Amino acid sequence: MDTLKLIDPKDMRNMVTFFPELLSEIALESDLKDTIIKIHENGIDGLCFIGMGGSSIAGNYVKAIFSEKATVPMIVERSYTIPKYINKDWIVVAISYSGNTEETLSSLKTAMNNNLRTICITSNGVMEKSGCQFVSLPKNFQPRAAFPLIFSALLTITELSLGENITNFKRITKILQEKTNLWGKTIPKPAHFASLFENKIPLFIGAEHLSAVAYRAKCQINENSKHLAFNSEIPEANHNEIEGFEDSGEDLIKPIFLRGNHEFSKISSRLDTTYEMYKELKLDPLDLRIDCSSTIGEMLALTHYLDMVSIELAEIKGVNPITGNRISELKRRLS
Amino acid sequence: MDTLKLIDPKDMRNMVTFFPELLSEIALESDLKDTIIKIHENGIDGLCFIGMGGSSIAGNYVKAIFSEKATVPMIVERSYTIPKYINKDWIVVAISYSGNTEETLSSLKTAMNNNLRTICITSNGVMEKSGCQFVSLPKNFQPRAAFPLIFSALLTITELSLGENITNFKRITKILQEKTNLWGKTIPKPAHFASLFENKIPLFIGAEHLSAVAYRAKCQINENSKHLAFNSEIPEANHNEIEGFEDSGEDLIKPIFLRGNHEFSKISSRLDTTYEMYKELKLDPLDLRIDCSSTIGEMLALTHYLDMVSIELAEIKGVNPITGNRISELKRRLS
Repeated sequence: MDTLKLIDPKDMRNMVTFFPELLSEIALESDLKDTIIKIHENGIDGLCFIGMGGSSIAGNYVKAIFSEKATVPMIVERSYTIPKYINKDWIVVAISYSGNTEETLSSLKTAMNNNLRTICITSNGVMEKSGCQFVSLPKNFQPRAAFPLIFSALLTITELSLGENITNFKRITKILQEKTNLWGKTIPKPAHFASLFENKIPLFIGAEHLSAVAYRAKCQINENSKHLAFNSEIPEANHNEIEGFEDSGEDLIKPIFLRGNHEFSKISSRLDTTYEMYKELKLDPLDLRIDCSSTIGEMLALTHYLDMVSIELAEIKGVNPITGNRISELKRRLS
Repeated sequence: MDTLKLIDPKDMRNMVTFFPELLSEIALESDLKDTIIKIHENGIDGLCFIGMGGSSIAGNYVKAIFSEKATVPMIVERSYTIPKYINKDWIVVAISYSGNTEETLSSLKTAMNNNLRTICITSNGVMEKSGCQFVSLPKNFQPRAAFPLIFSALLTITELSLGENITNFKRITKILQEKTNLWGKTIPKPAHFASLFENKIPLFIGAEHLSAVAYRAKCQINENSKHLAFNSEIPEANHNEIEGFEDSGEDLIKPIFLRGNHEFSKISSRLDTTYEMYKELKLDPLDLRIDCSSTIGEMLALTHYLDMVSIELAEIKGVNPITGNRISELKRRLS
């Protein structure tokens, strides 16, 4: 766990800088591994990921990675309960970095009361004491900065559950480190990219596996930069949102298209054409592309880059990326 | 089919006015009914709704209505294909009002090639000739205005598939007609409500069954009013979006909270508290509530109201709610 010693958990830039290295830091305990392998051998009917915000987004990434080949449903639930159809042949994975997220604990309780198979991913809190087997994450991170740790754990659990090959995180770390070297060369410096929408609302547009990345980017800009942001998905946005730019968007919204090497050809044409049309509407869209040989590398390289963009935007605006004043205030009022 | 004769399909206001009546207009052919009852008797593993835009949103409504009691997964897919895990024990319902939506036809083809059980809902086009059993909708509507027709068909199919009681649409029509009488009395006139965000970007905020309504509202404002709009969901937005309003939202965004009588108590507190905090941030949020004795009534009464709000906003802005210039242009360029 050498990397962890290098990370100052009070410094968001520091945490995001070590994003690639954090992908390798989590290994499942052999007990838990054995449990999941046994579950796999008996067969599973589906995977239900429960969690909120920064603890939950890894669920969307894993679902996207398996979108084509998944042989059972994967669902991501962000509320106080889980659907009734989740039965003993499913696996429920509850993720709460703090271990104290009220919605997730409520859903976990429902699952445990119904004697469902549950696995937790947490660093602390009530969840650790729930009696459920768990992956123990290093403490003191911001939940959103713990994403690479959570993602590594969740992807490994999913792969074991489905009997799939285990992803080589060390290789991905290396790829992401190489991609970081391109910042400021073949893609803009994160600080420059952030400055392009400093006074606008970024609208992150993704398709397929990059939809999850677009949503993550929206949330990181919200939380780290205290800045409004939205996300949308192609092809769906082609059927409604595209009509919304008749006049009002020009000075307010900055569409940012997340692009990749692994797009279905029809989706590529839609992204190209939507970009062109937004350009003609004088929306001055941006295009962001980090080529990778794998979809998972593409997703993570873009995520790392956009995480850093959110830090740079915070710096430009003079706000502290570590704080979450509104979230804390809301929690205080609800308690 | 008396109502249909009264509707001028070239007049969006006219189509939206008859929203309540259109809920009663679709009855399944007895052949199709028998097919679905037989499928139910053999048992199903899940329901997969495929479609895009205005043809697809009914899938989210049906999913929300069954969220608590569904005994099998329901998924809504908006792309060119369907997940691999959809097998012969699922039902795939393909919805394309025009019958020519490229993404939906592609997904339907995959389903039919894999010998899956498919049912279509359409008014015309290639889908009608696909060889798949279909519910035939009245022609010449705008897909988004055909929502009550599509919804009636889809809910009936779902209820038959699950062996649930069939919804009494005539009763709901009556309730919606009564609720319409409240417009301008206990809730603002749609034109007045529209004027409250004429120069801003509305952000429709929903929770639970009203999340689908928030998304529908965003799309209707986009398409009918040619106006930007976004949507978000509580509790998830409490974990990220709430931080985005530090400074930039004040003059741009109008949060609109969709409220109901059927909220889980913890969700109610979250909506109340988020509303208060947005008020303190000077975002001047709006609150929209149409009390109904059922969740489905609540969803549809709010939908009817917000559909009309989108027409009024178009009128205020002097744009034609019937056209979809950007969507047509995009289709032209892609073909």
